[in-house]
Amino acid sequence: MHSHPPAGDLQSVDEYLAEISAAITPLAPRELSLADAEGARAAADITAGYALPPFDNSAMDGFAVLAADLAGASTERPVTLPVTGEVPAGDTREHRLEPGHCLRIMTGAPLPAGADAVVPVELTESGDGQVTFRAPVEPGGSVRLTGSDVRPGDLLLTAGTRIGPVELGLLAAAGHATVPARPRPRVAVIATGNELAEPGTPLARGQIWESNSTMLAAAARADGADAYRPAAVPDDKAKVLAMIEAELGHADLLITSGGVSMGGEHDVVKAALLEFGEVRFRKIAMQPGMPQGFGLLGGGRTPILTLPGNPVSAYISYLLFGRAALNALQGGPAARLEPTRIALAGPVRSPGGKRSFLRGVLSAGRTSVSPLTGQASHQLATLAKADALIIVPEEVTAMTAGELADVLFLHV
Amino acid sequence: MHSHPPAGDLQSVDEYLAEISAAITPLAPRELSLADAEGARAAADITAGYALPPFDNSAMDGFAVLAADLAGASTERPVTLPVTGEVPAGDTREHRLEPGHCLRIMTGAPLPAGADAVVPVELTESGDGQVTFRAPVEPGGSVRLTGSDVRPGDLLLTAGTRIGPVELGLLAAAGHATVPARPRPRVAVIATGNELAEPGTPLARGQIWESNSTMLAAAARADGADAYRPAAVPDDKAKVLAMIEAELGHADLLITSGGVSMGGEHDVVKAALLEFGEVRFRKIAMQPGMPQGFGLLGGGRTPILTLPGNPVSAYISYLLFGRAALNALQGGPAARLEPTRIALAGPVRSPGGKRSFLRGVLSAGRTSVSPLTGQASHQLATLAKADALIIVPEEVTAMTAGELADVLFLHV
Repeated sequence: MHSHPPAGDLQSVDEYLAEISAAITPLAPRELSLADAEGARAAADITAGYALPPFDNSAMDGFAVLAADLAGASTERPVTLPVTGEVPAGDTREHRLEPGHCLRIMTGAPLPAGADAVVPVELTESGDGQVTFRAPVEPGGSVRLTGSDVRPGDLLLTAGTRIGPVELGLLAAAGHATVPARPRPRVAVIATGNELAEPGTPLARGQIWESNSTMLAAAARADGADAYRPAAVPDDKAKVLAMIEAELGHADLLITSGGVSMGGEHDVVKAALLEFGEVRFRKIAMQPGMPQGFGLLGGGRTPILTLPGNPVSAYISYLLFGRAALNALQGGPAARLEPTRIALAGPVRSPGGKRSFLRGVLSAGRTSVSPLTGQASHQLATLAKADALIIVPEEVTAMTAGELADVLFLHV
Repeated sequence: MHSHPPAGDLQSVDEYLAEISAAITPLAPRELSLADAEGARAAADITAGYALPPFDNSAMDGFAVLAADLAGASTERPVTLPVTGEVPAGDTREHRLEPGHCLRIMTGAPLPAGADAVVPVELTESGDGQVTFRAPVEPGGSVRLTGSDVRPGDLLLTAGTRIGPVELGLLAAAGHATVPARPRPRVAVIATGNELAEPGTPLARGQIWESNSTMLAAAARADGADAYRPAAVPDDKAKVLAMIEAELGHADLLITSGGVSMGGEHDVVKAALLEFGEVRFRKIAMQPGMPQGFGLLGGGRTPILTLPGNPVSAYISYLLFGRAALNALQGGPAARLEPTRIALAGPVRSPGGKRSFLRGVLSAGRTSVSPLTGQASHQLATLAKADALIIVPEEVTAMTAGELADVLFLHV
């Protein structure tokens, strides 16, 4: 590792993440149906009101027995018991097993009173109204005891937990039809720039096709937001202001891209928001993604993130700061990166004083990561090839193949 | 590692995955708008029709120059050039730089004819109609060349690629308003069982709250499907058949849970589908999740997966076989697991002849994984605590702390 002191006039990534997390007020919690809670976060600790399973039940299709009745069973000395009934799953009747008998029982069916074990059907031989057992069974064998999954009072979800498929399943299994949750944030993703044309339309000289809003809105949706794209805004301060004011009535978070660099009156987002007040523009000690802005707008104190316009800068900024804002809106745990330490398959370079996020490709088994060529912030094709971001710390300017690096996975 | 021969009468996980992938016909491709293509997969190789960027442009806000004009510039011998104009981004005019002059230029603006470099504004001093440079610049400095991201004919996406946020961004940037894609599959998730009550309603004796359909539908949505839950079906063969026949008209994939074990006439899904034909029930050499069924139903040859009813078995079965089916429907690459090799933080046991999927928790940095206690297939709370699945191969019955294991991450 070659080292370099961090640059002094830049704000660090971690400070900026902490500022975003601290400034944002979480959305008001609501009681959401499970169908609407997908992607929301629990607004309180959720505890179990009931035991799961709610009753002792069979783990197998087989025969409910009293284990003592099979104490001496073996191939040489099989035990044969009369079958006195059948307990299917969902049976609401009360059954009782008399010693010296057995009951046919299905997976999930309540264990009859008097029984203390189940012998799976494939370990038995069924005859006419009777069953033969050639081995003993332990008391409790193939029985799921009441509360062996969840006991009443157990914590099911802690406040702030993202409600995904398994959390939904656990809530449903525990009988919850609704859950107190902070809903999916509504996110307006606004692209700005005179150079932007809608894909599918011909380009005039000097124009490019607008892609950031499509990409960032999809990324926010993948992170549990309800994101939408208002029409792109030209470089006109009044129009930018009007769009922002309109979206303040709809969105829980505004994300803009473009218009925040060093171009003076051409940086219309910056110019418009400086007039609005309460948005602070700053340089973050990172590459790509240095120029950033964040503030709270209007009476609702709606957070706004102004991301740079280069597509790779915008995307990586979203991953860091957009996710942090969404987390904060949903009352999630303070944003932090969760990198994995993996060996570099090739050397990397980084400007001193900035944390670099370099696109890379993981090996099979994710034991190493190869930095890609084409790391400039306009090279979106390289991002589409990448499945990982290699993080090079601020104080490091070069790393060699074989060194362990912090790596963010872009996919599961 | 303790070893044990694989069990002979079971089908291996890999054989079953291959069978599912081979049997399913991909959905017909459609030309989808980008908004509708989110979560779809490309139905053909997509190549670029244009260069990106489409024109040489500035990477910075600054001044467009002829590099030769600044050849000797230094702090001692600064070079001052008159500013003859300004090129904002999106400028459709044609500009020409005369040697010995410079033009103000914004990020993304087209490089004027005659210029070959840009000097960032922060490296200059602006005076009245002129700018002073105190260092030379390389030709090409701060210029993004035409095609430096994508050249015409470059492969943007290969057929079968999942269209996520970055892929959408790349398609938009390349001017595509639509993309030939296999759409999000429609998935009906059907729970069966007399014991099932809807969450929020009181339980009768012997009942449990239905959770599998909620969990599996959410999991399928997270994987890019449009999943829905018809009402749960009681253990009545005619009703199961009627539900399956009705859903064949709506869904691209049917997923059932429950009703497929050893209970004879009580296993109504099995009984119903054996009558329907074309569904093969089998035991897979895995734990949890051994009893599985797969087949193609009706004139549309709609695939159906019958998953076991235990919630953990159902979820892990979905991760393996449900995802494989979705992949196949979308023409994705043949399903395969992508585990990471990580050290075990504690010992694990596994039945001989079966591949075990054990719930675990990753350490910070994902350098090791701790197996959780509570691995029975009804213990859903343990799955909610887990962020990884430890895979123990068929021939292994025990592994010790420190051994490297194949681990599937459940989250990014």
